[in-house]
Amino acid sequence: MVEPANTVGIPLNHAALLKDELDIVIPTIRNLDFLEMWRPFLQPYHLIIVQDGDPSKTIAVPEGFDYELYNRNDINRILGPKASCISFKDSACRCFGYMVSKKKYIFTIDDDCFVAKDPSGKAVNALEQHIKNLLCPSSPFFFNTLYDPYREGADFVRGYPFSLREGVSTAVSHGLWLNIPDYDAPTQLVKPKERNTRYVDAVMTIPKGTLFPMCGMNLAFDRDLIGPAMYFGLMGDGQPIGRYDDMWAGWCVKVICDHLGLGVKTGLPYIYHSKASNPFVNLKKEYKGIFWQEDIIPFFQSAKLSKEAVTVQQCYIELSKMVKEKLSPIDPYFDKLADAMVTWIEAWDELNPATKA
Amino acid sequence: MVEPANTVGIPLNHAALLKDELDIVIPTIRNLDFLEMWRPFLQPYHLIIVQDGDPSKTIAVPEGFDYELYNRNDINRILGPKASCISFKDSACRCFGYMVSKKKYIFTIDDDCFVAKDPSGKAVNALEQHIKNLLCPSSPFFFNTLYDPYREGADFVRGYPFSLREGVSTAVSHGLWLNIPDYDAPTQLVKPKERNTRYVDAVMTIPKGTLFPMCGMNLAFDRDLIGPAMYFGLMGDGQPIGRYDDMWAGWCVKVICDHLGLGVKTGLPYIYHSKASNPFVNLKKEYKGIFWQEDIIPFFQSAKLSKEAVTVQQCYIELSKMVKEKLSPIDPYFDKLADAMVTWIEAWDELNPATKA
Repeated sequence: MVEPANTVGIPLNHAALLKDELDIVIPTIRNLDFLEMWRPFLQPYHLIIVQDGDPSKTIAVPEGFDYELYNRNDINRILGPKASCISFKDSACRCFGYMVSKKKYIFTIDDDCFVAKDPSGKAVNALEQHIKNLLCPSSPFFFNTLYDPYREGADFVRGYPFSLREGVSTAVSHGLWLNIPDYDAPTQLVKPKERNTRYVDAVMTIPKGTLFPMCGMNLAFDRDLIGPAMYFGLMGDGQPIGRYDDMWAGWCVKVICDHLGLGVKTGLPYIYHSKASNPFVNLKKEYKGIFWQEDIIPFFQSAKLSKEAVTVQQCYIELSKMVKEKLSPIDPYFDKLADAMVTWIEAWDELNPATKA
Repeated sequence: MVEPANTVGIPLNHAALLKDELDIVIPTIRNLDFLEMWRPFLQPYHLIIVQDGDPSKTIAVPEGFDYELYNRNDINRILGPKASCISFKDSACRCFGYMVSKKKYIFTIDDDCFVAKDPSGKAVNALEQHIKNLLCPSSPFFFNTLYDPYREGADFVRGYPFSLREGVSTAVSHGLWLNIPDYDAPTQLVKPKERNTRYVDAVMTIPKGTLFPMCGMNLAFDRDLIGPAMYFGLMGDGQPIGRYDDMWAGWCVKVICDHLGLGVKTGLPYIYHSKASNPFVNLKKEYKGIFWQEDIIPFFQSAKLSKEAVTVQQCYIELSKMVKEKLSPIDPYFDKLADAMVTWIEAWDELNPATKA
């Protein structure tokens, strides 16, 4: 079958990898002009746009992109009462896109992220690098000092056990940001002018047992391997907290990846993050998270899933019970969040019925 | 007091950091011509040269370097029967230099390592970067996606717990290698032409609980914090194994650093590694290690030190007992090694008597 996207003269300098197996999820409240810059890299792919805020507003999408768009009314219609698990007025709403996708891979990107340049001045095809990261294994059980051993020009160093060199499947590829770094409000306030100019030419596996702050701005994952754990929680409208959506997902995802023997990579690709969000607004959203995380992180560090939990859904339901038991004493919010975690899994399974063997 | 080294016209473009608190340890069997290239960076420091092999041979040291040199006769004279713990005909002998030093910091480098250039073409002052790494904290308890948060232009990212931002003292700085990568014999044989050309501009903390392959080629550490654990084992002459000296030290060091709450960093600085060792010779030295490490690494991954072990020496003696108990069944070599670990600590304490409070 001839792929139309590759025959109509789009200036691609390479075949679009995994074109039919990957969806790009974009949460937004505005016109998607930022896609113009991404056209050479992203146009061959299907977009899932999750419109946040006022559903009566029209979001303009640059011509030539293939997309489906969901606003709040669509989410409510599709999920019914279970729509309560999808945040409103917060980019956490993006996880609805993960749920309605039918593809194996997801790339999600914020609408204030532009194409970065590598030190040679070449435009970085972020999606291509994410795909490379996802398609080659991870090495979570032992540290490789020359970074990703599967990259061209690199390998496992002396002293790396041979039995571990096959690695494990990679579930998550976490990309980074040039220009505006992903700082919390206090750091933004203290260092308003700091820009990230350091291009670190590395991809690495985050070791088993180590948690990390997962940012949702430039992120790809294997939906079949980890999708049901990519829940961005209850944030924004009506919630006491914001800007912890991706962090929450990252903690849950890492604990479950460690339990199931899956890999999480971080490093390349970079995107160019154009716009610092308002630190005063951010502080208001974050401040509860800033002290809650002091308890949440030890909770996730010590969370142990049972041997019976062998699917992502089973792991996630177990985790929701632990959240209810261990974190609810901090704030009633966690009781609500634990319930929403269950609702999320029910909604996921409803939209993604298991295929019969 | 005027420092003579800075007044006689040595072309230093900066003050020699920690000049009186750091020794450079070099194991060698040949003339140290390689120091010529390092002169601008290393001449202000004191060298401890550990001559391996035939003690009657004279090692030439370029003029202007301040050094002390120990050959096998010196080691035997100084340590008496305890000299049995120091390897012969193997670069593992370098750890004798760590023991006789009276300084707080050690930098050790191989004599086939030259000054690397960074991507801008500037010569890399490896020692200066090691000192920076050692003088700023480590962050072993949670992963920072923008690498070393203490570097200029970087910080902790959103979601990093504030209670962990002070970090812990850094005990080890592990530098990397351009040109010839530190591969084992099988990888050397399979990829004889692979060269490391990727300059990764990063320093990072190896997370708590994660082991790594520590290479002794380009390594610095805080002798006060971790010195007694930097034992390079029994290798070379009369031993069934070679080229695992630094690996052994690295596994012990990491387990003890994790127990004592100390940090281990890896990444910058690079040196330029000029000469690949012979893969056939290496295979002969390594082959037992290649299968032993399949058991050794799970052993170290599960090694738990007791609460009573609060000094490096106490930790190391506990570890030696575990080695005797758990690894001796693999090969009688480990029984001998466990004894040598104890001898090493006795010799260390003899040469480094505890200062009275």
